[in-house]
Amino acid sequence: MLAELAEAGDTEALARQAAETHPADIAEYLDTLKELEAQLNVFDLLAAPQASEVVRKLSEPCREALLEALSDQRLSALVEGLDTDDAADLLGDLPEGRRQALLFRASPETRRVVGDLLAYPEDSAGGIMKTELAPMRAGTTVGELTDHIRTHPQDFRDVHNIFVTAEDDRLLGAVPIRELILARTETLLGEIMDTDVVSVGVDVDQEEVAHLFEKYDLLSLPVVDAEDRLSGRITVDDVVYVIEEEATEDMLRLAGVGGETIGSPQAAHAIRARLPWLALNLVTATMSAAAIAVFEETIEQVAIAAAFMTIVASQGGNAGVQTMTLIVRGLALGELQASNTMRILRRESLVALINGVLLGILAGGVAYIWRGDLALSLVLGLAMLMNLLVAATLGSLVPTMLELAGVDPAVSSSVLVTAGTDVLGFLIFLGILTLVI
Amino acid sequence: MLAELAEAGDTEALARQAAETHPADIAEYLDTLKELEAQLNVFDLLAAPQASEVVRKLSEPCREALLEALSDQRLSALVEGLDTDDAADLLGDLPEGRRQALLFRASPETRRVVGDLLAYPEDSAGGIMKTELAPMRAGTTVGELTDHIRTHPQDFRDVHNIFVTAEDDRLLGAVPIRELILARTETLLGEIMDTDVVSVGVDVDQEEVAHLFEKYDLLSLPVVDAEDRLSGRITVDDVVYVIEEEATEDMLRLAGVGGETIGSPQAAHAIRARLPWLALNLVTATMSAAAIAVFEETIEQVAIAAAFMTIVASQGGNAGVQTMTLIVRGLALGELQASNTMRILRRESLVALINGVLLGILAGGVAYIWRGDLALSLVLGLAMLMNLLVAATLGSLVPTMLELAGVDPAVSSSVLVTAGTDVLGFLIFLGILTLVI
Repeated sequence: MLAELAEAGDTEALARQAAETHPADIAEYLDTLKELEAQLNVFDLLAAPQASEVVRKLSEPCREALLEALSDQRLSALVEGLDTDDAADLLGDLPEGRRQALLFRASPETRRVVGDLLAYPEDSAGGIMKTELAPMRAGTTVGELTDHIRTHPQDFRDVHNIFVTAEDDRLLGAVPIRELILARTETLLGEIMDTDVVSVGVDVDQEEVAHLFEKYDLLSLPVVDAEDRLSGRITVDDVVYVIEEEATEDMLRLAGVGGETIGSPQAAHAIRARLPWLALNLVTATMSAAAIAVFEETIEQVAIAAAFMTIVASQGGNAGVQTMTLIVRGLALGELQASNTMRILRRESLVALINGVLLGILAGGVAYIWRGDLALSLVLGLAMLMNLLVAATLGSLVPTMLELAGVDPAVSSSVLVTAGTDVLGFLIFLGILTLVI
Repeated sequence: MLAELAEAGDTEALARQAAETHPADIAEYLDTLKELEAQLNVFDLLAAPQASEVVRKLSEPCREALLEALSDQRLSALVEGLDTDDAADLLGDLPEGRRQALLFRASPETRRVVGDLLAYPEDSAGGIMKTELAPMRAGTTVGELTDHIRTHPQDFRDVHNIFVTAEDDRLLGAVPIRELILARTETLLGEIMDTDVVSVGVDVDQEEVAHLFEKYDLLSLPVVDAEDRLSGRITVDDVVYVIEEEATEDMLRLAGVGGETIGSPQAAHAIRARLPWLALNLVTATMSAAAIAVFEETIEQVAIAAAFMTIVASQGGNAGVQTMTLIVRGLALGELQASNTMRILRRESLVALINGVLLGILAGGVAYIWRGDLALSLVLGLAMLMNLLVAATLGSLVPTMLELAGVDPAVSSSVLVTAGTDVLGFLIFLGILTLVI
């Protein structure tokens, strides 16, 4: 619909249609447009509150380009139309100078609140909470609260729980919106509130926040400061995004592309994200090459060993990545504890032993049929078994040790595990072969 | 707390304490117990509705072991205490015979509804929806509805939107619970309902369901059958789980451990999940070895080439995995479209060209310092650049082609991409070297 009207150049009809379209659908349409100018032609037709929601829903590369093209005045209006958490996200993504300029233009309320939110780390509870709270006192009656909601519906747009606070802003409890329907109008909130409320501190990591939402099936979570005062709330729609973001981050980190934005058209970003890991891999690959070079004479005598050794390294690398991925993901989901290292290692070693025997026999058999060299085939099978045991050990120990040391295992497990299975795979195979021939 | 009481063997105090503990916390405690007997000692103290919730929150390996140990009678009571979606999940995980026995024992209502749910694929909207609906008619007044909620609070426990249906069960609209507070008691639901409700068919994939929740910031989503009749609803807490599950699935598939349960103590499961992929890798590694074997004479002459060729293959494999992971994740998140293949390929080729030139010069330089052989160093640098271009091509094309063919790119991209960068890496390096020497 939007696409057809935009193509026909019917600005008036387009504006009418856009006003009736869900912001997420407009954002999806803008994401498909390749030209910034075409995007701006549609975006400029949107009124302030809707435009803000559209910006929130745009894909990252598209949003970045669009924000850069907008005037400070327009951007300023967009910021005022957003919830405080989204306003802080938007400003946080801008270059320092522009952010300051926009904060300077903002309403005093926005400047103060959003300025505070920007001070929290992006991936902490403080960094994802919003400050729209509308807290109530325990002495308020259900009737007073419902009257207040009727006169201020905008303040309760996405509120699932009414938080009850003391005079000093300490969190006392929460009343689910549903309870307001069940309770009699003269009932005090203090009587029906749930005092056993799960809450988090502002500096808790967003991954931990997501765990709490999952564990307790929450719709919203109050955030408190160091003095236990209610500072903000996190809603489940933001957590859905956090869970996806954390999974993406781990996946990209495991592949050595951490920090890269999916779909970014800028090659410079990609090079900056990937080159360091490729360079590090070049170092470890050179170490592997050095390990091979030790056995130059062996290879001169048995050139086919150069072919067989790569099978040993490849199998080890794959098996190591299997173990490592399971453990990195298990640690991230909280389904494995680093303290269980020994139990994990025992199980992985058993799996590697059985897989290693089976694959070793298979590979040795194929090698014997291919080359008819019994000694070489036996060395291949044995080296494969041994390298699978190496893979299980490294695949188990590397991520759990990193986790115990407080380092994100997703960041460097891959390079360490595969470097180990490469170097040791070559050394084991060529070493045994040198002893045998 | 629970741990101390359980250790002290104070059954009565333990039961009291457990009754006051959140089911998710009890489940977490049970997950930490290593002995099934110890788990049962605690679990047997739990009353029916709480016990059901605890089962729902247990980790998969722990739940499996516990359910196996429970009597049909106890399990039957647990099933009745669960929402229909969770009851179906629980029964779906049991062996066929036991499932039938439990369905036979169940109440007629449960047997019919849960039996229906079990017929839907596990990862479809039908497979994750619950049938607890309490739909209303457009002619019902807000006052009538709130009275109904007061008399049947249990039916509205986690209801965020009241669905309004026609006589023939067709979905007409939805009224958020909050609106009941804002509206006057004599207002008809038909007047205030939102008729522009997002809904899905029972056979829509759960990944698509999760996308809709994210896109529209939903709390619940109605599910309709082929005749547009309201059949169930999906709530956001289930979607949080779906998103995590889909990400885990993709991550494990990329690593060749798809289908394995994280934290499962059974080595047999792990072997069954991993051996096929390792065997497939053995096939591709043997192909690589065969490619190397073609150049046996070259290696006999220049044994150090065996060391250098592994650097070319290793860098290609890493670069290929970088590109492939970004694209697999981008496709899963809907941030990339397979139809953009050419744009992706152009960008990745540019990145590879620049990284390749830089890394090629670096590797060639190091090789020259190490061995002082100019020709060999030039061949290494050139082969590296060429293999990075191969990596970009395969890393881009393999997942997008699989997606276009309707195959999950997470399942087989890794093995195809790295097989390609290995075989071609060896061929390119040894091929050029053979021409030069």
